[in-house]
Amino acid sequence: MVKFGVDVGGTTIKIGLFSMDGDLIEKEEIVTDKSDHGSHILDDIAQALDRILSAHHLSGLDCAGVGMGLPGPVTEKGEVLGCVNLGWGTFSVEEEFSKKFHNLPVKAGNDANVAALGELRYGAGKGSRNMVMITLGTGVGGGIISGGRIIMGANGAGGEIGHMPVEESEEEICSCGKRGCLEQYASATGIVRMARKMGFSSSKLDFTAKDVFDAAKKGDETALDAVECLGKYLGIAMASVASVVNPDCMVLGGGVSKAGDILVHTVEKHFQTRVFRPCSNVEFRIASLGNDGGIYGAAELIDSK
Amino acid sequence: MVKFGVDVGGTTIKIGLFSMDGDLIEKEEIVTDKSDHGSHILDDIAQALDRILSAHHLSGLDCAGVGMGLPGPVTEKGEVLGCVNLGWGTFSVEEEFSKKFHNLPVKAGNDANVAALGELRYGAGKGSRNMVMITLGTGVGGGIISGGRIIMGANGAGGEIGHMPVEESEEEICSCGKRGCLEQYASATGIVRMARKMGFSSSKLDFTAKDVFDAAKKGDETALDAVECLGKYLGIAMASVASVVNPDCMVLGGGVSKAGDILVHTVEKHFQTRVFRPCSNVEFRIASLGNDGGIYGAAELIDSK
Repeated sequence: MVKFGVDVGGTTIKIGLFSMDGDLIEKEEIVTDKSDHGSHILDDIAQALDRILSAHHLSGLDCAGVGMGLPGPVTEKGEVLGCVNLGWGTFSVEEEFSKKFHNLPVKAGNDANVAALGELRYGAGKGSRNMVMITLGTGVGGGIISGGRIIMGANGAGGEIGHMPVEESEEEICSCGKRGCLEQYASATGIVRMARKMGFSSSKLDFTAKDVFDAAKKGDETALDAVECLGKYLGIAMASVASVVNPDCMVLGGGVSKAGDILVHTVEKHFQTRVFRPCSNVEFRIASLGNDGGIYGAAELIDSK
Repeated sequence: MVKFGVDVGGTTIKIGLFSMDGDLIEKEEIVTDKSDHGSHILDDIAQALDRILSAHHLSGLDCAGVGMGLPGPVTEKGEVLGCVNLGWGTFSVEEEFSKKFHNLPVKAGNDANVAALGELRYGAGKGSRNMVMITLGTGVGGGIISGGRIIMGANGAGGEIGHMPVEESEEEICSCGKRGCLEQYASATGIVRMARKMGFSSSKLDFTAKDVFDAAKKGDETALDAVECLGKYLGIAMASVASVVNPDCMVLGGGVSKAGDILVHTVEKHFQTRVFRPCSNVEFRIASLGNDGGIYGAAELIDSK
């Protein structure tokens, strides 16, 4: 038997064919067709999966099911509550996709939560049952595992740590409409914003988060201040999260996490000065599955039921 | 068949005899004997339970098991990691108590978490599967239910929201050794501290949290400011918690919660201005089981496995 892990993004859809033990057999990527309110997406995926099965001389009978990560809130019942990126409204992806694909079991989850599950089982969180994954990209996303299970929440918005309030005095408005969210400091966009505010100068007019970290590694004081600022707010937020879920492991992923040690050490320092002692036994690690976290985690949904 | 719910506190031990449907048949309280490092406590409980069973013409054969709430961290495996209030070190309460009580199934949990489970099933959280309980007493405690299950965490310290960092500029030190914890503002001690700082004057030299709320209800401006301050920090902290676990219900318990509407309204106002919109659909309620939450929740542990 085999199973699929599908990571549906706004630009591409990543598909992984897995053994039941979670070994990746084959990986493929198709383009996301968002036309007609994304109504072709599920058909495109079903076709791709069938193509992959036949290439391996397999059929629907050999497949245990399909796990899916989706870019929006997904309820415990497998209903998406709108995926703006795909043009989708509210409907049961699990039921719909099952009809299109041999009536096989389908399990859906939020992409950040599913990626966290991937890191937990096969990546940086291996061995943990209580893990927080923080994705530092253009925005800040998160996925939290408690007692081995994803925290989904009442309407699929569990682990949305990017919009935790961390600064009462912030004057600029966040993408979500509030002020002082974690994302305004700890995302790629956030560190660039803060570095610019602090007067960081680069040879490039449009410098990136990587430029700030590179300059910090070379000892640039303004860049170091910007990294310190990111670390401070991420440390505060993670100290709060630790009080809530008491994890033993925090995994940093996304583009910004490529900064590596300097990021881990700065966050850890600020975390440790603010966390409640009984919740302080936390190891910070860099995510190890990269872009494949989503397909690994999605495939894992098929075992978890 | 019957089952027991036992709430072990530093002063008294509350015992409830329940039907398997969770109806309270009888309630009793015994004094906590903390002498000899609390080594008599489990024997005292076993004797009391046997006495209650015989009074109802029942024996160990009629009992499905015993659930226990304990004043300290309890791991998923039912091991207590020290209960300072009882003089206990680290050991498996479940195994020990089972030996003393007819080898029946025993399930232990942290008292705040167990009380949250009680409110979820029989109290203010009825119908919810994603609930946060905040106990505002001398300190601030918490218990969080996600997907119907208690968030226990890696070492039993899940839901310890009293020591979330909420104010970077605080100069006084919290009981935990840090500065700027939620408990420093939102506990009974916290609101008295802040009211005093703001210059609140009362006919009593040693005024209480109740005095501050009573004055606020009568329109005293300084008292209103102190209530506003409590509401602000609790609102900030709960906005963070909501991003993490996306609950549909927050239950306020403990002595301070007797303040009622003024408390709920103030917290709700500050929560709503800071919470991430997809996590904002939260109802604030006052706990309804009072001191019995612990025994109700403890008894519920026997069904949950």
